[in-house]
Amino acid sequence: MIRVREAARRLQGKVRVTPCLDLEPGAFGLPGHITLKLEQHQHTGSFKVRGVYNKLLTSTIPLAGVVTASGGNHGMALAFVARELGVPCRIYVPEVATPYKLAQIRKYGAAVQVEGAVYAEAAEAAQRYADFSGALNVPAFDDPAVVEGQGTLAFELEQQRPSTETVLTAVGGGGFIAGLCSWYQGRVKVVSVEPDGSPTLQQALLAKKPVDIMTGGIAADSLGCRRIGSVPFSILQDGVAQAVLVSDEVTLRAQRLLWDELRIMAEPGGATAFAALLSGAYQPGVDERVNVIICGGNVDPHSFPVGA
Amino acid sequence: MIRVREAARRLQGKVRVTPCLDLEPGAFGLPGHITLKLEQHQHTGSFKVRGVYNKLLTSTIPLAGVVTASGGNHGMALAFVARELGVPCRIYVPEVATPYKLAQIRKYGAAVQVEGAVYAEAAEAAQRYADFSGALNVPAFDDPAVVEGQGTLAFELEQQRPSTETVLTAVGGGGFIAGLCSWYQGRVKVVSVEPDGSPTLQQALLAKKPVDIMTGGIAADSLGCRRIGSVPFSILQDGVAQAVLVSDEVTLRAQRLLWDELRIMAEPGGATAFAALLSGAYQPGVDERVNVIICGGNVDPHSFPVGA
Ligand SMILES: Cc1ncc(COP(=O)(O)O)c(C=O)c1O
Ligand SMILES: Cc1ncc(COP(=O)(O)O)c(C=O)c1O
Repeated sequence: MIRVREAARRLQGKVRVTPCLDLEPGAFGLPGHITLKLEQHQHTGSFKVRGVYNKLLTSTIPLAGVVTASGGNHGMALAFVARELGVPCRIYVPEVATPYKLAQIRKYGAAVQVEGAVYAEAAEAAQRYADFSGALNVPAFDDPAVVEGQGTLAFELEQQRPSTETVLTAVGGGGFIAGLCSWYQGRVKVVSVEPDGSPTLQQALLAKKPVDIMTGGIAADSLGCRRIGSVPFSILQDGVAQAVLVSDEVTLRAQRLLWDELRIMAEPGGATAFAALLSGAYQPGVDERVNVIICGGNVDPHSFPVGA
Repeated sequence: MIRVREAARRLQGKVRVTPCLDLEPGAFGLPGHITLKLEQHQHTGSFKVRGVYNKLLTSTIPLAGVVTASGGNHGMALAFVARELGVPCRIYVPEVATPYKLAQIRKYGAAVQVEGAVYAEAAEAAQRYADFSGALNVPAFDDPAVVEGQGTLAFELEQQRPSTETVLTAVGGGGFIAGLCSWYQGRVKVVSVEPDGSPTLQQALLAKKPVDIMTGGIAADSLGCRRIGSVPFSILQDGVAQAVLVSDEVTLRAQRLLWDELRIMAEPGGATAFAALLSGAYQPGVDERVNVIICGGNVDPHSFPVGA
């Protein structure tokens, strides 16, 4: 049972209420009434703190603290929440993790351990550490409390923009979008957007079960997930109204446009949902009220793809 | 007579309603309830379009179009509004203008003319062009219609956060803050924040009249104004509740913190008001409701001062 309202109450004052920005009608030649939910202004630059916070507040935390494997936004979120709660935190990251995100994780005071060439090896190391020390291994998406926490974004958005008809959001392991679907229960059309190089949810929906896929592309560090979570999938099978894909090229265009025209700095995964509007992968009706979630802003400004 | 309400009606749908972000109580060790007005998401990345749009919509525009001298945000704003209205636009910029802002001005289709080593020479060239061609020379701040347009931010903010007690804002030539004061008429405490290297308003308030000062520092390209405008000053003499100064060092710290903790990218002038909280130059009461205007985000991400 996913209780988003309870989670929202639990997280009140702990996560930020992030603002919405309404675009002018006809902006960028797009149909519909487009609103952006600026979740990149959330603590640690992504929605991930919502799920992690809810998980930690509903768990008994062992003396050994918490651990996870993530070179990215989940790791940053866990490091932040652990610091807020004053519990020890250890993050295993694969060698491929970007220096920028590593520095961010360290900033929050977590012990960072680089382990293995790829994510799977870091994940094994994290599990070994949890087994050995008794620390709580905090999942990134395949967990009811995490899904519940992510759902608080939809709860919040419904208060801010009650007339929203459609929500567009990026998908990795599916925890975030499952949270949104759990709150909306079909009242709002939830559209998933994935890079065509990592169609984790789309392939699972076709196969009618989680399946392993190849992952890649510019958003791989946030959306590149080999297999959709089983907790999320049980919600998404009926919850997602439409599943669309976008190319890396359009995601890059979305990143540039968000900066050039709106001074929003989004990482590739944070610009992916907006890319579906630019490419026409999702075409709103003339008067449709569409909310696009800018779900992450963790990019090194110095390597941001400025200009044409 | 500054009629902000009429201007707000005139600009509706033409300028963006920019969002507010409430910080959690105690964020960054600051007292009070702090809200940021994210005006850097405005068209062209600053509030400047408000004043320019109002000026152009209340003027008869000659066939020769519009002209101004500005290598910065005012130039970008004029180029944008001129394109929206379909009128010819020419911008004179001094050689010191940053390549980033120049490229932005060109992007909106204005004719850009580099003229003279310093601003004063570009301004003379703009006036010569206006005299010769009949084009309208659009002032950056010393003009009632411009002040009126800038005031629409306060009108908008009052609807968004009616319980605001104090507004902190950066000052250059004084047009922006004069617009805010015109709307609030003393109902809200308006505090001016200036770089200690460009205390244009503070010196004028001390002298009880506009005086020439030396300008410099990291925010000089937006706030470095030799003399406060006479139209603004007539409003500010009684309108400004408190005038504080900040050092470049704290402004830089504000820029970094806004990015690191909030994923807000502000230019130096856009971070100046927030710097007054960080330095304690303005100290809110424990429960004071303070709004800080993030008034500009026109910085090249590649030269943004990331990290400690
Ligand atoms: C910015 C961003 N967007 C979207 C996602 C996908 O979230 P989920 O794995 O819950 O689908 C992630 C996951 O890390 C992310 O960091
Ligand atoms: C970002 C920013 N903030 C503040 C100002 C100061 O505005 P004013 O000259 O109206 O005082 C400017 C002026 O260019 C600006 O660009």
